[in-house]
Amino acid sequence: MAYGYTGKILIINLTTGNFSIDEHDEIFYRQYLGGPGIGAYYALREIKPGIDPLAPENVLIFAAGVVTGTPAPAVPRYTVCAKSPLTGGIGRSEAGGWWGPELKAAGFDAVVVKGKADHPVYLKIEDGTYELRDARHLWGKETDECQRLIREELGARYRVVQIGPGGENMVLFANIVNELAHFNGRNGLGAVMGAKNLKAIAVKGSNKVPCFDEETVKNTTRWAAANMKDHPPAYGLHKAGTPGGVTIVNAGGALPTRNWQENTFDRAAEIGSDKLEEILIQRGGCYSCPIRCKRVVKVEKEDLNVDPALGGPEYETLVCLGSNLGIGNIELIAKANELCNKYTLDTISMGMTISFAMECFEKGLITTEDTGGLELKFGNETILLPLIKLTAYKEGFGAKLALGSARLAGEIGQGSEQFLLQVKNQEVPAHDPRVKTGVGLQYALSSHGADHWTAQHDPFFQEAGSPGLQALEPLGIFKPVSATALSADKVRLIYYTHLMTVMYDCLGVCVFGYVARSIVPVDKLVEMARAVTGWNASTWGLLKAAERTSVMLRLFNNREGFTSRDDTLPKRLLEAVPTGPLSGKNKIDEQLFGELIKLYYQMAGWDEDGKPTAAKLYELDLDWALEYIN
Amino acid sequence: MAYGYTGKILIINLTTGNFSIDEHDEIFYRQYLGGPGIGAYYALREIKPGIDPLAPENVLIFAAGVVTGTPAPAVPRYTVCAKSPLTGGIGRSEAGGWWGPELKAAGFDAVVVKGKADHPVYLKIEDGTYELRDARHLWGKETDECQRLIREELGARYRVVQIGPGGENMVLFANIVNELAHFNGRNGLGAVMGAKNLKAIAVKGSNKVPCFDEETVKNTTRWAAANMKDHPPAYGLHKAGTPGGVTIVNAGGALPTRNWQENTFDRAAEIGSDKLEEILIQRGGCYSCPIRCKRVVKVEKEDLNVDPALGGPEYETLVCLGSNLGIGNIELIAKANELCNKYTLDTISMGMTISFAMECFEKGLITTEDTGGLELKFGNETILLPLIKLTAYKEGFGAKLALGSARLAGEIGQGSEQFLLQVKNQEVPAHDPRVKTGVGLQYALSSHGADHWTAQHDPFFQEAGSPGLQALEPLGIFKPVSATALSADKVRLIYYTHLMTVMYDCLGVCVFGYVARSIVPVDKLVEMARAVTGWNASTWGLLKAAERTSVMLRLFNNREGFTSRDDTLPKRLLEAVPTGPLSGKNKIDEQLFGELIKLYYQMAGWDEDGKPTAAKLYELDLDWALEYIN
Repeated sequence: MAYGYTGKILIINLTTGNFSIDEHDEIFYRQYLGGPGIGAYYALREIKPGIDPLAPENVLIFAAGVVTGTPAPAVPRYTVCAKSPLTGGIGRSEAGGWWGPELKAAGFDAVVVKGKADHPVYLKIEDGTYELRDARHLWGKETDECQRLIREELGARYRVVQIGPGGENMVLFANIVNELAHFNGRNGLGAVMGAKNLKAIAVKGSNKVPCFDEETVKNTTRWAAANMKDHPPAYGLHKAGTPGGVTIVNAGGALPTRNWQENTFDRAAEIGSDKLEEILIQRGGCYSCPIRCKRVVKVEKEDLNVDPALGGPEYETLVCLGSNLGIGNIELIAKANELCNKYTLDTISMGMTISFAMECFEKGLITTEDTGGLELKFGNETILLPLIKLTAYKEGFGAKLALGSARLAGEIGQGSEQFLLQVKNQEVPAHDPRVKTGVGLQYALSSHGADHWTAQHDPFFQEAGSPGLQALEPLGIFKPVSATALSADKVRLIYYTHLMTVMYDCLGVCVFGYVARSIVPVDKLVEMARAVTGWNASTWGLLKAAERTSVMLRLFNNREGFTSRDDTLPKRLLEAVPTGPLSGKNKIDEQLFGELIKLYYQMAGWDEDGKPTAAKLYELDLDWALEYIN
Repeated sequence: MAYGYTGKILIINLTTGNFSIDEHDEIFYRQYLGGPGIGAYYALREIKPGIDPLAPENVLIFAAGVVTGTPAPAVPRYTVCAKSPLTGGIGRSEAGGWWGPELKAAGFDAVVVKGKADHPVYLKIEDGTYELRDARHLWGKETDECQRLIREELGARYRVVQIGPGGENMVLFANIVNELAHFNGRNGLGAVMGAKNLKAIAVKGSNKVPCFDEETVKNTTRWAAANMKDHPPAYGLHKAGTPGGVTIVNAGGALPTRNWQENTFDRAAEIGSDKLEEILIQRGGCYSCPIRCKRVVKVEKEDLNVDPALGGPEYETLVCLGSNLGIGNIELIAKANELCNKYTLDTISMGMTISFAMECFEKGLITTEDTGGLELKFGNETILLPLIKLTAYKEGFGAKLALGSARLAGEIGQGSEQFLLQVKNQEVPAHDPRVKTGVGLQYALSSHGADHWTAQHDPFFQEAGSPGLQALEPLGIFKPVSATALSADKVRLIYYTHLMTVMYDCLGVCVFGYVARSIVPVDKLVEMARAVTGWNASTWGLLKAAERTSVMLRLFNNREGFTSRDDTLPKRLLEAVPTGPLSGKNKIDEQLFGELIKLYYQMAGWDEDGKPTAAKLYELDLDWALEYIN
């Protein structure tokens, strides 16, 4: 454990207050790497099937990646895993920021939280020491106030991962934040933290993560910084951030609008990155990243102040709280984003749940009687901020919104399910599977519900000679695949790039800093991982470790009763595009889509119900998990 | 096609005398690499199912590897493919020596031979030019004489690949030789050459194979040469060659003796490497190899001259023509080896066919009436050389031996099948599957019949920290597996190392110079392949290309009617070891063995009958081969 790792995983049982430390041999680390690899390992072994995700029996794992916290470029990432209260399957959600690197500097690769404290607590970790502290005075505080108070108590240099009122109140899509602006956004893992009465984990470390060959690692960083401008996608992210996508996607006829009843938004320009420039005060970023894709925004108006400390809206937020609600007011969206962030609510699920409710309202399935008098109409700017606050505190109609759209549809009934845009109970992000069919496959296949982060996006691979396609050459994919193809080639592309993104997550590197959008190709990444660890690792071995992770995540779900029936897309996203330049086009053939899902299973070594076979478990040295498929 | 390759594949139709040149794009080369990759590609596409392997419709492919002929270390290899007259399935056989590098220097990556000449011919290739020449004056000549005559005609610098009388007379296990001592040994591909009336291919080239980064390539060679002594297995091969195995294997109770009726040979020391030293005059080697594992022997006796030009006996030969026949006379075996080499007969199949006949003779199933008066008794030294000559010329009992043991058993009948030691009609090499169960699995699974060269051997992986196991770490295998285990771990080991050896063959590197026995670990090999080609290749991509090759070879067999019933071991090798230190032990449970074969299919993405699934073909971009599985 000399290089890259600390070799220690902190286990805390909140019920008893007992701490212990797991130390594993090098083979464990080579097989499970870090991030979701270690997260899935503990989740699958420590969480009993069938438990209530909000019960003390759930286990919450925070795990840094292999190269997280080293001087390599764009390596801030860590993963949170638990059983998800939103999906009922495996929860896993990655974040950047600074907390992961700090955890490693403090002497731990991961923290595993079991049980439930009998009153609010927070965990303090500093250079190999750990302590549970009373958090009763922090409970109920919004994130900025909570972080300020913790730093007052402990000192300014503590990095704080925490939940706000949304997590405390167990909103089913509550998220977890570090440094106020970096989110483990999805799967409602903040609610699990809240259910455990764990307000925060404050970490300070002064150790350097040791690298086997630090000079090579640093050279990669220098190279990445020097070459960023030559890589248009990376430089574009620097210049415009993810909001750069809004007007491009709108022009392409694929911007989710008014609960995806439309595909273009007439006010798209008003919520795009050019407009955002007007309130932009700086570019923000994460540990060790030259790209700095984050937007920091500030609004100072009498009744609309946006505090820059809480981060600016991403593409997903601008769409889910903007066009998708028929709202074209960038300052309002920035404020809505700031509120979600203070409360720790996932902006995608928040926006998509509101848009679902709006469609139900406009179609008369719910009325002001249900909403406490709020006119849930698309474009109604006056209700957005109140709805978010009501949700965080589960007050009034907010108590319904706090369930997420799928459960809300269950309460509303009357065929409202047809307006849902979710997979495995998690709301879909703002990428249209009809123009990126690979994203559609990953929405359907993802173990943790609709997600745009578990494989690469189709447009990067449709042109011969493009940097995206060149980045796949090490994987043995050489031929372009069109973004809208529904073909075996597309399935392979998604299968391989899924493994690749899981590998990124396990390593602790950010997809934005690496392949596809990207300045560091996969072969350079492997070289860097070797330099950090001293391992004779290869792309094969690292991708097989990623597959091991992916299979464990899948097994968790199988054990909870998930089957191939859960690997589908919402009906609305199979229909022809309703409006805009693609109007009437790009219908997805449901039978063909289903056949491609089955083809994916076969390529992946899963049975026809989507369950990994015994042979796959044997291949991946997961014999210990055989009991979960029998 | 700038680096590593010439970009040209020469096609010759011997029936018409027409030449043509195939030029493929870079994607073709990245997907099929070279060696058996290109061999299998042409075999599967150009050979119609069901043809007689000795008919003009068979197609014979000579293909160099990716790095063959570059200044990299130990890169002499090329492959010959065709439908095998011995197995009726795919024939593929690799050789080292000098011919492959010369072919590339002459401007071709491969030569594809179709049709049949109406009289003996040979092919002359020189620096991009090619010409068919009359070989009537060479027909009937032994290999040394033939090579001498061709060089007289064309010049001394020609490298000659050729057949002797064994190939001309279509002995079903005739092989192909280059430089008199380097053999495409197995599968009877020399008979295919003979059936086409193609005596030889003489090649001369003056071009340098271009490397993208020649300095890195040369540094690998310098490193390999300088470090050989630090790698005991490689240095052992240099010191003792493969014959070093004889006494070690005998001491371990695993030396095939008297048609494998016994497992130790009381005269083992007389045929071991120490004894061989007495007739050793130098160490021979191949193009660019620092190891020089070949033995060059000389005997000058009145009635037993062994010409050093024809090479010395390998481990396989010392066993198959020695202990397995009960013969403990090293000079006689060296002479028998020299004769086989002159005639181009595979020493493994020759020896194992004789030993089968001896057992039949001793058990009274055949008599001197069948053998033309020869006393086919184990240990009868007087009959060995006559039997080899009779076989090459298909005279007397030699005409029966020329069929190989399986067909001979068909002629003898009377239950003689129980004495057979073959898989898919090809005789097993001299490695006992009861002490190396992985070798047993590869014997059974190999597309080209029993073979000891298609996966790594078990003893290298049974000790934690051993160089063999470290060499597998890049593949994600970290835990030792005992040589005699019959387990899922063993199946994975064989599946992965099979892909690895196919990768070596496709690249054109020699297993002896690389992993396991080895001075160049797999990660350094990938780095070297990148330096040669300029490709952003990775271990994943190269292993997937190897899998593509393996699947094509398998498909060829499926198309010819091979099923899981052909993936078995001979009964005798499932029984407990009969004699020696392991007497009564190491019985292989037939049912368990069968289950592990099925497990291998599942890991490899093959159906329960051992046929690659459509999903596997899609994954490997082999859609064009889908018709062969329907």
